Amino acid sequence: MRKGQRERFTVAGGGPVGSLLAILLGRLGYDVHLYESRPDSRKTNIYQGKSINIALSDRGWHSLERIGIDPAIKTEAIPMFRRTIHARDGNLTHQQYGQDDDAIWSVSRGKINEQLLTLAEAEQSVATNFEHKLVNVDFETARANFLVEGERKVDVEADFLFAADGAHSKVRRLAHDLPRFSYSQTYMPQSYIELNIPANADGSHKIEKNALHIWPRKDFMLIALPNPDGSFTCTLFLSFSGEPSFESLSDRDSVEGFFESNFPDAMEYLEDPVDVFLDRPPAPLFLVHVFPWSFNNKVGLIGDAAHAIVPFFGQGMNCGFEDCAELNDLIAENDGDWSRIFPAYERCRKPNADAIAELSKRNFIEMSDLSGDPMFQLRKKIEAKFHEVYPDLWTPLYSLVTFSPEVPYAKALKIGDIQNEIMDQIMRIPSIEQLWQDPQLIDELYKLAANRIGEVQ
Amino acid sequence: MRKGQRERFTVAGGGPVGSLLAILLGRLGYDVHLYESRPDSRKTNIYQGKSINIALSDRGWHSLERIGIDPAIKTEAIPMFRRTIHARDGNLTHQQYGQDDDAIWSVSRGKINEQLLTLAEAEQSVATNFEHKLVNVDFETARANFLVEGERKVDVEADFLFAADGAHSKVRRLAHDLPRFSYSQTYMPQSYIELNIPANADGSHKIEKNALHIWPRKDFMLIALPNPDGSFTCTLFLSFSGEPSFESLSDRDSVEGFFESNFPDAMEYLEDPVDVFLDRPPAPLFLVHVFPWSFNNKVGLIGDAAHAIVPFFGQGMNCGFEDCAELNDLIAENDGDWSRIFPAYERCRKPNADAIAELSKRNFIEMSDLSGDPMFQLRKKIEAKFHEVYPDLWTPLYSLVTFSPEVPYAKALKIGDIQNEIMDQIMRIPSIEQLWQDPQLIDELYKLAANRIGEVQ
Repeated sequence: MRKGQRERFTVAGGGPVGSLLAILLGRLGYDVHLYESRPDSRKTNIYQGKSINIALSDRGWHSLERIGIDPAIKTEAIPMFRRTIHARDGNLTHQQYGQDDDAIWSVSRGKINEQLLTLAEAEQSVATNFEHKLVNVDFETARANFLVEGERKVDVEADFLFAADGAHSKVRRLAHDLPRFSYSQTYMPQSYIELNIPANADGSHKIEKNALHIWPRKDFMLIALPNPDGSFTCTLFLSFSGEPSFESLSDRDSVEGFFESNFPDAMEYLEDPVDVFLDRPPAPLFLVHVFPWSFNNKVGLIGDAAHAIVPFFGQGMNCGFEDCAELNDLIAENDGDWSRIFPAYERCRKPNADAIAELSKRNFIEMSDLSGDPMFQLRKKIEAKFHEVYPDLWTPLYSLVTFSPEVPYAKALKIGDIQNEIMDQIMRIPSIEQLWQDPQLIDELYKLAANRIGEVQ
Repeated sequence: MRKGQRERFTVAGGGPVGSLLAILLGRLGYDVHLYESRPDSRKTNIYQGKSINIALSDRGWHSLERIGIDPAIKTEAIPMFRRTIHARDGNLTHQQYGQDDDAIWSVSRGKINEQLLTLAEAEQSVATNFEHKLVNVDFETARANFLVEGERKVDVEADFLFAADGAHSKVRRLAHDLPRFSYSQTYMPQSYIELNIPANADGSHKIEKNALHIWPRKDFMLIALPNPDGSFTCTLFLSFSGEPSFESLSDRDSVEGFFESNFPDAMEYLEDPVDVFLDRPPAPLFLVHVFPWSFNNKVGLIGDAAHAIVPFFGQGMNCGFEDCAELNDLIAENDGDWSRIFPAYERCRKPNADAIAELSKRNFIEMSDLSGDPMFQLRKKIEAKFHEVYPDLWTPLYSLVTFSPEVPYAKALKIGDIQNEIMDQIMRIPSIEQLWQDPQLIDELYKLAANRIGEVQ
């Protein structure tokens, strides 16, 4: 640190996490310079034609509350109170996400990013820079080199650097060459494409607005999240190779047959799904695990740069925002001493990021297969009922992850594993379909749960 | 493939695995060009002052038998029939590795490499090239670019390329940028340095020659392997950071204290261990997992390039040699059709490489901690006795991995896990220390094992 001056931070990456981090650091009095490789989306409409939306839930809101931006974002967000499951025959079932008005919120990634950037720029101590592509980092000094608008090179000195440059993080890839840096990048068998359900002429939604729609087909699935303009952004998750897959469905006839036999009720709404399927290259899904998350107490990784996960638990951005909020707390707890903050940050966040990565992988099976299974739906009903009677003893895993920001992800995973074992036992009870409302069953569950859940602390 | 010509292979890397692969491919009639980045060790003595030795066991021998080089190598190899455990007080215990004359063999990595290179060059269809540093590979065409002696660039065309370029494989790192390539590189907490026990003046060994010596100290350990010249190559495995560690032991007094209190009986033999400790940077230990192992049926990974593991099971080179031998068999089985050979090769070898990686990690604990524990020694004795009575039902895991090349690593791991569960039950029997020779115990073990071991097929 240069004496007599405020400590200077480089934030690499101006996505939602980088912007939130810049605001938080700026408000703590640091001199923050944010660099984004792409042009400013508020000026160039780089998101045009692409409405990526994201499920924001309590961890995300909880983190956004720190900067008071949550009401502004909520006005453009759509609460989804339940899953709506579309069976092959068009039959619908509904699965409440939590209790009463518990909801996950469909937000536009682009919009939330722009709102955060605007708020960052309103901070006196934050400066934003676009079209600055990071090319190198000195992990000893936190000096970074950027290529500006594809031409000029600039060197940026700083006391510290945070890389919030996303799942494909350049800073993280540069760190591969550092001694003792462990990393993994693992592809899922599934890839995805985005499809669209346009709005009705009057701007209303063609299918139920306040739900996350799922067409679970075991090895693949279609989902739809509502947008404020009446449209839905849909995602088809399907294996990259094998049968059926993006590779095997290669001609118009087979793609048409695939959509018509698997998603007949969606076909009346989807906009040119067959053309999109044939034209658009599927995007891969991958998880990134690395350690450490910080280098020489000078450079840190945050958000997807530190822990890219798959989208099946809707927690990617929530986890990145939580990284920022917890880092914010650790700065205060450690009196701004970064030789303690960096180690505390990675010690605290790494196990939670690992846990949500594991949970996000597992949730593909829950969404694409189990969500359409009547025994699984019964299991969920039993859990919900037990939660009603013993709310302190049993909160279903989904709610722990989504609606309980006070429970760290790592603890939620441990509790979830114990709950699973217990529910496996319950579901093996003969005629459970008839017995499940019996008060004795709740007593039985209580006996099984009382000892075990306490183990996790 | 160019019609009318023999198919041409580039082998990148002239270590033991690359050399063996070149010989096997050459003998099958392929036109093989091997490229090594370093100078030819037979001319430049690059190994001078460094005698890396390796434990060769049945999988390695079994693979070397294919080319008839095993007798030549055995003349320079030293059989180690047992572990010799050095307690802190200097007390020695011995643990036989297998039965009768089962041994693992201490060989010089440099010598075996040179013998294989010489044999490769004796093949008409194999050409070797040194000081050719690979800089790029075209994964579509198998064309590779090399930098020769740090100056000239050469492009090498080939029908196929195999990367046998080791744990730090350049080809594998280039593959990081390919779509859907999963990779991980994980560091162990331990690092290592090599130490030396010189020969007696008459060329004899200062400690027992035909043993692998271990000084197990729980979180760290020293080991020693014999060399034909009477010396021992020793390796100290110790945490990189924490207490004690390479980081924490930073001055002469503390290093001297560390050696004298932990390895008092070795201190009279070791050559300047304190100086070496203070001067030499510790080398890291890491595991690499990747998938796929082949690209476009043109480029393949083999040996450490595909699966770098840690040395605690002494299986690294054995596994690489086994890759070559199994690939050799698959070429015949698939009539030289590489569009079938590459997929068959990775399907067959990947699970086995994953299994030996897992086993090699676990074996650190067995070597550094358990090998010094009397209850663990008893457990081994019970297993050995049970094996004597029921040799078809129970072969101890160490023997499955080391002396049973007909059992794939993946199957050995599965059997080992079941054996572990069974032995955990046996060791919980009260007064097992007194009861273990009781014939009833063998009956008990038989009952536990008979059903379970059959599960694994």
